[in-house]
Amino acid sequence: MNKHEDIKTLRHSAAHLLAHAITELFPHTQLTIGPATETGFFYDFLPESNFKETDLPRIAQRMQEIVQRNVPLTHTQISKDEARKLYASNKFKLELIDDLEGETVGLAQQADFYDLCRGGHVTSTGKLAHFKLTGISGSYWRADRNGIALQRISGVIFFTQDELNAHEQRIEDAQRYDHRRLGKQLDLFSFHEEGVGFPFFHPKGKLILNELQGFMRARLADAGYKEIETPMMLSDELWRRSGHYEFYKNNMYFSNVENKNYAIKPMNCPGSILIYKERPRSYRELPLRLSEFGKVHRHELSGVLHGLFRVRAFTQDDAHIYCPIELVEQEILSNITVLMKVMKRCGFDSIKKIGISTRPENAMGDQAVWDQATDALKNALQKAGLEYHIKEGEGAFYGPKIEFIIQDSMKREWQCGTIQVDFFQPENFDLSYVSAGGELKRPVIIHQALYGSLERFLGVLLEHHKGNLPLWLAPVQAKILTVSQEQKEYAKNVHDILKKAGVRVEIDESSDALSGQIKDAQEKRIPWMLVVGKKEAAQNTVTLRMLNGTQEQGLTFETLLEKAAALLN
Amino acid sequence: MNKHEDIKTLRHSAAHLLAHAITELFPHTQLTIGPATETGFFYDFLPESNFKETDLPRIAQRMQEIVQRNVPLTHTQISKDEARKLYASNKFKLELIDDLEGETVGLAQQADFYDLCRGGHVTSTGKLAHFKLTGISGSYWRADRNGIALQRISGVIFFTQDELNAHEQRIEDAQRYDHRRLGKQLDLFSFHEEGVGFPFFHPKGKLILNELQGFMRARLADAGYKEIETPMMLSDELWRRSGHYEFYKNNMYFSNVENKNYAIKPMNCPGSILIYKERPRSYRELPLRLSEFGKVHRHELSGVLHGLFRVRAFTQDDAHIYCPIELVEQEILSNITVLMKVMKRCGFDSIKKIGISTRPENAMGDQAVWDQATDALKNALQKAGLEYHIKEGEGAFYGPKIEFIIQDSMKREWQCGTIQVDFFQPENFDLSYVSAGGELKRPVIIHQALYGSLERFLGVLLEHHKGNLPLWLAPVQAKILTVSQEQKEYAKNVHDILKKAGVRVEIDESSDALSGQIKDAQEKRIPWMLVVGKKEAAQNTVTLRMLNGTQEQGLTFETLLEKAAALLN
Repeated sequence: MNKHEDIKTLRHSAAHLLAHAITELFPHTQLTIGPATETGFFYDFLPESNFKETDLPRIAQRMQEIVQRNVPLTHTQISKDEARKLYASNKFKLELIDDLEGETVGLAQQADFYDLCRGGHVTSTGKLAHFKLTGISGSYWRADRNGIALQRISGVIFFTQDELNAHEQRIEDAQRYDHRRLGKQLDLFSFHEEGVGFPFFHPKGKLILNELQGFMRARLADAGYKEIETPMMLSDELWRRSGHYEFYKNNMYFSNVENKNYAIKPMNCPGSILIYKERPRSYRELPLRLSEFGKVHRHELSGVLHGLFRVRAFTQDDAHIYCPIELVEQEILSNITVLMKVMKRCGFDSIKKIGISTRPENAMGDQAVWDQATDALKNALQKAGLEYHIKEGEGAFYGPKIEFIIQDSMKREWQCGTIQVDFFQPENFDLSYVSAGGELKRPVIIHQALYGSLERFLGVLLEHHKGNLPLWLAPVQAKILTVSQEQKEYAKNVHDILKKAGVRVEIDESSDALSGQIKDAQEKRIPWMLVVGKKEAAQNTVTLRMLNGTQEQGLTFETLLEKAAALLN
Repeated sequence: MNKHEDIKTLRHSAAHLLAHAITELFPHTQLTIGPATETGFFYDFLPESNFKETDLPRIAQRMQEIVQRNVPLTHTQISKDEARKLYASNKFKLELIDDLEGETVGLAQQADFYDLCRGGHVTSTGKLAHFKLTGISGSYWRADRNGIALQRISGVIFFTQDELNAHEQRIEDAQRYDHRRLGKQLDLFSFHEEGVGFPFFHPKGKLILNELQGFMRARLADAGYKEIETPMMLSDELWRRSGHYEFYKNNMYFSNVENKNYAIKPMNCPGSILIYKERPRSYRELPLRLSEFGKVHRHELSGVLHGLFRVRAFTQDDAHIYCPIELVEQEILSNITVLMKVMKRCGFDSIKKIGISTRPENAMGDQAVWDQATDALKNALQKAGLEYHIKEGEGAFYGPKIEFIIQDSMKREWQCGTIQVDFFQPENFDLSYVSAGGELKRPVIIHQALYGSLERFLGVLLEHHKGNLPLWLAPVQAKILTVSQEQKEYAKNVHDILKKAGVRVEIDESSDALSGQIKDAQEKRIPWMLVVGKKEAAQNTVTLRMLNGTQEQGLTFETLLEKAAALLN
C-alpha cells in the first residue's frame, strides 16, 4: 500500500468516524455517502433539522471521544437481503444497495456503528486523532440539483498533529498572503466597477509585469524566437474558420466595424498564422518561432472572477513554432530549457508534475503521426532529465500536449507552462513551406505559453513569496535609512551609486527614528534596507539589513554592487 | 514684400498664365477662379468638352510659349459696369463682380488676355518659366457639391529650375520611400482583410516598436514618470461621464459584457484617472506622472485609412501628470526636455514649429486660471529656448495646448508631440489632493503624448530616413560578409564578440560572391556591413562598409565596439 492509498484510507475512515459521531448525537439523521477527497473527506447527511456551524465543535468533540475509545474497525460482506433489512428506513442506502453489482455488499463496523462500505480502513478509531472539521455546506443526493437537498460536513485529517498544524498554517498563510490583499497593501493593482474583471496595474505592479516580460523576452530572443504583434480585433469569419468561434463563443467579446462582426481576440493563434501565411516560406526559415505578449479577452461569469487568478483580460506569453514534425523534439527541448530558466529565476527550483496528454478517441491525423509527435515529447522530457506521467487519451483532438505543474510554498499546485502540438490549424489554414527538395510541405504548429498568463503568474508569485519578491522583481529594491539627519548627504551619495548601477533605490526622507523607518520598509517588503549611521558615513560603507532581520555590517560599495549584480543579472 | 508673399505672387501669376494658355487653345472655355495655394496654384474651368490628362503637355507647352513672349503684366481698376460688359457671357465672373464691394474691380492684363483680379503679380510672363502642371481633377463652383461641376488644373511653380527639380525629387522620393512600400520591402508589417486598418507587426517591425518604446520608457523613468496599465474595455457610463462618448461615439467600438455596454478605449485618460482616484492623494505625491503605452482603438472610415499614418488601432505614449497649477511650468519644461532628447535620437535635430493654442470663446474656467496656465506654457518654451507662435482662441474648451511640428527629409511637416492642460476632467471626476495645509485642493491634469502614435511615428521615421534607420533602430544592425568560405570561422568569432556587446548581428551564410552579399545587405538596409577577407582574418580586424558605400579598413574590435557603443548608448 503506497502513501497515497494510506492517506485515502485515513480520510475515508475519518468520514465513518464523523458519521458515527453524528449517529450518536443526532440519531434521527439519515446517512448517505462519505468518501475521501483529494484534500480531505466529507459526509452527506439528511438531518432531522439542519446542522449549524455552531454544532461543529460538539461533533468534533464526540469524534475525539470515539478516537479515545479506540474501538477496532472491521469489515465484512453481508447479503443484499440482510443489508436491505438493516437499512429498511433509509431510502438512500437502499438505492445504493440496488445499484451495487453482485449478491453481497460490504459493511464496515466500529462498536455499534456500521456503514455500507467497499472497505479500506485503518484498524482502529485511535488512529484518527489528527482531524479538523472545516465546514458545513449544501449538497444534493447524487449531485442532482433538482433532487433531495442534503447537508455536507467536510474535514481534513493527517497522520500526525504536526502535519495538521502545518496544514492549518498553510490555510492561515494563504489568507494572510492572499495576492488580492498583498496587491492592495503593496499598491500593485486594483479592480474597479467600471471594468469588472479587468485589472488596473499601478506603477509598482506594472513594473513587476515589465520585469517578468523583459526576462522572458530576453530568454526567448536567446532561444531564437522572434516577437510579433497582432491586432486585438479580427473579423468573425477568421474566428469561425479557426474553430475558436464554435468552442469559445460564450467566452468571447464581439464588436462591429462597418457592419461586419469582429471578435476581440481570446487567443493569439489566428493572428500569428496570418503572419506566417503572409508570404511563401522556405525550409530555411524553419523552425519559425513567432512569440507574442498578446493581451487576450475571455469572458468569465462575474461569480467566478478571483483577483488576478481569474480575470477577463490577460497577457499571454504566447509563441507559435512552425516546423516540420521531425524538429518537434529539438524544439520542445529548447522550450523546456527556457521554462526551467524562467521558473528558477522566479523562485521555483523544480517542476512538481509534468503530464503528457495523448491521443483521444476522436483525434484527427494518423496514428503514426501522433506516435511520432508523442515520442518527441517523451524524448525531449527524458533528455531534459525530467519525469512525467502519461494522461492517456486526454489530449486535444488536434495533437498531444505537455502540461507543467509547479508547487508553491503553501503546497498548492499551479499549472504554468503548456506546450501543445497542433496538426489541425496547419491543415485548416493550408499552411505550407517549400522543402529542400522544392516540394510544398505542411508544417506542424507548436503552441507554447510558459508563464501562461502574466497576470495570474504575478498572483502566484506574490503568494508563493508571501509578498517578499526576489530582488530582481521588487518594485523598490533598496531603501536607504539614516540613523540621523546628518547622514542625508551620505545617503544621497549611496543612492546615486546604486542608481547608476541600475538598482531601484529610494531614500527614506522621513524624520522617523530608525526603528520606524525599518518598520515602514518591512511593510513595503523592500528586500534591502541600507542603514547608514555615523560609522558607515565615516568608513564609506553601509549596513545591509534583510527583510528577515539578518544584518551585514561594514559593506563597501564594491561588495554591495557585486552582491546586487549577482542577484540582478 | 517678404519671401512668403513673393511665392504667392508667383503662384497666382502662374494661374493667370495657365488661364491665358487655355483661352488661346480652347477659346470656348469659361474661366472661374484661379488662386495660389499653400503648395502651388490651380484654375477652375468650365470647358466646352472635358480636358483630359493627355491635354496637359500641350497646355504646358503653350504656357512656355507665353513665357518666351515675355509680355508685361499690368493691373488696372475698372468700373463694375465695364467689367460686366467684358464678362457678359460668363455668369461666374458676373457673380464675382456682384459679390465684390465698391464700385470698381481689378483687372489683370497680359497681351490680349485679361482676368478679374485683386492684384499681386510678377512684372512679366518671362518670370514664370519654372512651373509644372500636376494634374486635372473635378471641382464645383463655389465648392457646392450640388452646384455646377468644373474642372481644376493644378500646378506648382518655383523661382528657379533647381527648386523645381528638388521639388520633383521630393515627390519621387515620397513615392519611392512610401512607408507602406518600405514596410513590405523590409518585412516590417502587413495589413490583412481580416482586420482592416489594424496593422500586423512582423518580427523586424515589432523590434523597432520595442526599441522606440524602450527608449521612451527609459527617458520617462529618468524624468520621474511611473508606468501604469489600464484595461482595454471600460463601461459605457465611464465614457459618458468623461465626455468622450458624446464627442467620439462615431469613432468608438462597443461591446457588451453581462448585458452592460462597454467601449473599447479610444483614449487612456479615464483609466489613468480611476487609478488617481483609487485612494486619497497627498501633495507629497505630486506631481504624479502616470505614463501608459496604451493601445487605443478609433474607428476611421475605410476610405481614409493610409498605411501606418491612419489606422484604427495604435499605441499612444500617453502620460497624465496630476499637479497643482503652480507646477505646470516646471512640468512642461521637463516634458520638453524629454521630447527634445527623443526627437534628436530619432534623427530630428530640431522642432520645426511650435504652436500654443489659447482660450477659445466657450471656455470653461476663469480667465485668470487660463492666463496662469498659458503663461506657464510660454515661460517653459522660452526657458527651453524655443520659438513658438500663438494660435489665438484655438485651444480646447478645457485648457491651453502646445503642439510640436517636425519636418522630415522631404520637407513635409508632421505633428508629433502635444501637451494639453486640462481643467475639465479634474472637476468632472472630482479629483483632489490634500495640501500641505491639510485642505482638499483640485489638481490640474497635463495630458502628454510625444511620439503621439508609435505606429504613425514609425511610418514617419521610415520615410524620413528613406528606409535607412539609424543604427539603434535597425532590426539587423550589422551583417558580416566574407570574401570566401575560408573566413566563416573568423566571421563567427566577430559575430560572437558583437553579439555579446549587444549588437544585433548576422552572418551572411550564402555562398554568393561579395558583391552579391553587399547588394543583399543594401536591399535590407543593414547599416553596417562588416567585410572580412584574408587580410582582416590575419590581422584580427574588419572592414566597415556603410550603406552609402564609404569604407573604413583595418578596424580593430576595440574601435568597432567603441563606435557601436557611441551610437547605441
